[in-house]
Amino acid sequence: MYRVLSIDGGVCAPEGFFAGGVAAGLKPEKRKDLAFIHSDTLCDIRAIFTTNRFQAAPIQHFKKHGIETTDFVLINAKNANAMTGRRGVEDIETILGHAKATFETIHNPVMSSTGVIGVPLPKEKILRGLETFDLRSKDPKGAAEAIMTTDSCDKQVAFEVNLDNGGRFRIGAMAKGAGMIDPAMATMLCFITTDAAVPPDEMAALLRKCADTTFNAISVDGDTSTNDTVMLLSNGRSGIYHREAFAFVLEKVMHELALKIVSDGEGATKCVAFRVTGAADDEEAAIAAKALADSLLVKTALYGEDPNWGRIASTIGASGAECHPDLLTISFGEVTVYERGEILFDSETEKRAAAVMKKSSFPIHCDLGIAEGSFTAYGCDLGHEYVRINADYRT
Amino acid sequence: MYRVLSIDGGVCAPEGFFAGGVAAGLKPEKRKDLAFIHSDTLCDIRAIFTTNRFQAAPIQHFKKHGIETTDFVLINAKNANAMTGRRGVEDIETILGHAKATFETIHNPVMSSTGVIGVPLPKEKILRGLETFDLRSKDPKGAAEAIMTTDSCDKQVAFEVNLDNGGRFRIGAMAKGAGMIDPAMATMLCFITTDAAVPPDEMAALLRKCADTTFNAISVDGDTSTNDTVMLLSNGRSGIYHREAFAFVLEKVMHELALKIVSDGEGATKCVAFRVTGAADDEEAAIAAKALADSLLVKTALYGEDPNWGRIASTIGASGAECHPDLLTISFGEVTVYERGEILFDSETEKRAAAVMKKSSFPIHCDLGIAEGSFTAYGCDLGHEYVRINADYRT
Repeated sequence: MYRVLSIDGGVCAPEGFFAGGVAAGLKPEKRKDLAFIHSDTLCDIRAIFTTNRFQAAPIQHFKKHGIETTDFVLINAKNANAMTGRRGVEDIETILGHAKATFETIHNPVMSSTGVIGVPLPKEKILRGLETFDLRSKDPKGAAEAIMTTDSCDKQVAFEVNLDNGGRFRIGAMAKGAGMIDPAMATMLCFITTDAAVPPDEMAALLRKCADTTFNAISVDGDTSTNDTVMLLSNGRSGIYHREAFAFVLEKVMHELALKIVSDGEGATKCVAFRVTGAADDEEAAIAAKALADSLLVKTALYGEDPNWGRIASTIGASGAECHPDLLTISFGEVTVYERGEILFDSETEKRAAAVMKKSSFPIHCDLGIAEGSFTAYGCDLGHEYVRINADYRT
Repeated sequence: MYRVLSIDGGVCAPEGFFAGGVAAGLKPEKRKDLAFIHSDTLCDIRAIFTTNRFQAAPIQHFKKHGIETTDFVLINAKNANAMTGRRGVEDIETILGHAKATFETIHNPVMSSTGVIGVPLPKEKILRGLETFDLRSKDPKGAAEAIMTTDSCDKQVAFEVNLDNGGRFRIGAMAKGAGMIDPAMATMLCFITTDAAVPPDEMAALLRKCADTTFNAISVDGDTSTNDTVMLLSNGRSGIYHREAFAFVLEKVMHELALKIVSDGEGATKCVAFRVTGAADDEEAAIAAKALADSLLVKTALYGEDPNWGRIASTIGASGAECHPDLLTISFGEVTVYERGEILFDSETEKRAAAVMKKSSFPIHCDLGIAEGSFTAYGCDLGHEYVRINADYRT
């Protein structure tokens, strides 16, 4: 058995990892915009990427070089280096070459980017910025702030796992993401560090499995970006690997960050868990749950704190999942408003459902009444602030 | 050959059709909310309906009775009669029975509804309302107004077709729809009347074929309602059927109404044609074009009049259609901003692209550079007014 402890330290919590962020002039007002994670030994690294067919240059670069080990991850905000053609990859090679030339402790650097699509990287600013890194700094907050775009706060998490036999390992992580978040893998970046001795051939499968119920279960606006990336770096420093504990805590790390992202959805005031049960199978449940998290009409009803269960029903009906009105049950929190064909929505029930919707976080539960399939997707409301942010993001 | 003339008269333009609308108290402030179309002889009728699995009671009723002829269509706004179970269908039978009992010229009545989901029909108001109908009135505008929900204006169109051999027939139509409009058949109602002698066994196929490029090519918010309906009523009064001319004009009727709907998208200020060419086939082109019309990030960029071509590219990449950055070309109107891997977006081009985006209607053209598939979808922008309308629609 094992105990799991929430700790401070973000990506620097596991032994042997350093991190920081500087202002390279990509963002205005000298805000931090260039981050690094550094390991004092080569780590195993595995990553999962966006399903968008136009993968950004950093992803192309990672795949081109078949990267499996690293000791330095460079991350810039404000520019996605996407749709930038061959030049995009060449710019990365120039920048990472400069990093190796500048710091003798960097051997296998990789890069990740987020921001506007279709503009070449401001290479000179990045080159000058990375020269100012202190690779021995342990400033996970600085790194987490530097990768923010429309995020309103930095997103970090770390856990220490104590095994009953006295062994100990840690997992730390940071993420960014607030808009363009979609179940088909969010526009988000996530960097996970660990000193557990994870076998390299298990890393990718673990990441994918955990992503299904975490980053692939959240939605802010249903768009899937060119840059989505989750990286796992393992330096094995603890000498310990406990598969069950590691898988459990990795999922916990990704789940907490996924909820932080959806709660920080652009302009979001609420985070709602759309729990679908009773579906023909888990895949069907996921289809229905993600349709709810994605629906504009559901999102605006959340924003208006309107227990408009008809929109919930209509969205499930349109989702493609097998369903029947006589088998469906819909509840806001504990308040059931529709039960297997019967409308329970009298004025008293409406009042209680409306009270649930005033909360900043609550579940909406739909039982399809067919079989045992279940899935929970997470979504936020959509209000005026989303429109304001996205109508003039580029300018 | 034939000539096509735009005429007044909406659904009353073809001979033998009557229409009108009254205020039955479903909408506030004595606005019209109950409409009828009446034919003085039995018409052939065919309809296509929503793909939503929770089809509203009027659709269930239509299918239950296998309706193929009618002389009276009753339409109410403000209440969708959806998710109302067996009672929903029984209410329709009561109401239509009362219509037959009240007017001896009504033999095969049908019903259609739009509005809030999950509330039983206000049957008494509808019964009293329909008693006030004047079945000899030719008030197509009154009918078109009565079926409006969040529409800002009534939507009608009519054409007269003059064949070179001296024959003449007419098609008239009205529609409603402003929100919940989606490529998978919009939440919209459309009623088409004609005095052409359309063979009954051709009507359904004609409707479906024309819907693919019209009502199924528009998007306001990507939601698919429980009530979507397109009905075609043919009384054959002209004695004339010219298949090519009829098909051409039917598509024109549905296309014009589809554009009226998307232009009247809730809070919309722009109507944009997303033209995709060069796709692997027409289906792939439709996937990409509809993804653009559906994307929240594209919609908000339209609202912000921001020629953010990166969002266009990213949405195409995420759509699932086959595409490659080195083959893609993107233009706003005549202004090409990205051509087969090359970014043409200098400050001069940006200025010209921004000028295009200030128009109320313009095309965005994406050539995928792969093969000959093409499709045009129509979408609108999404701004603050959409949020305002949808955050408190029910209340």
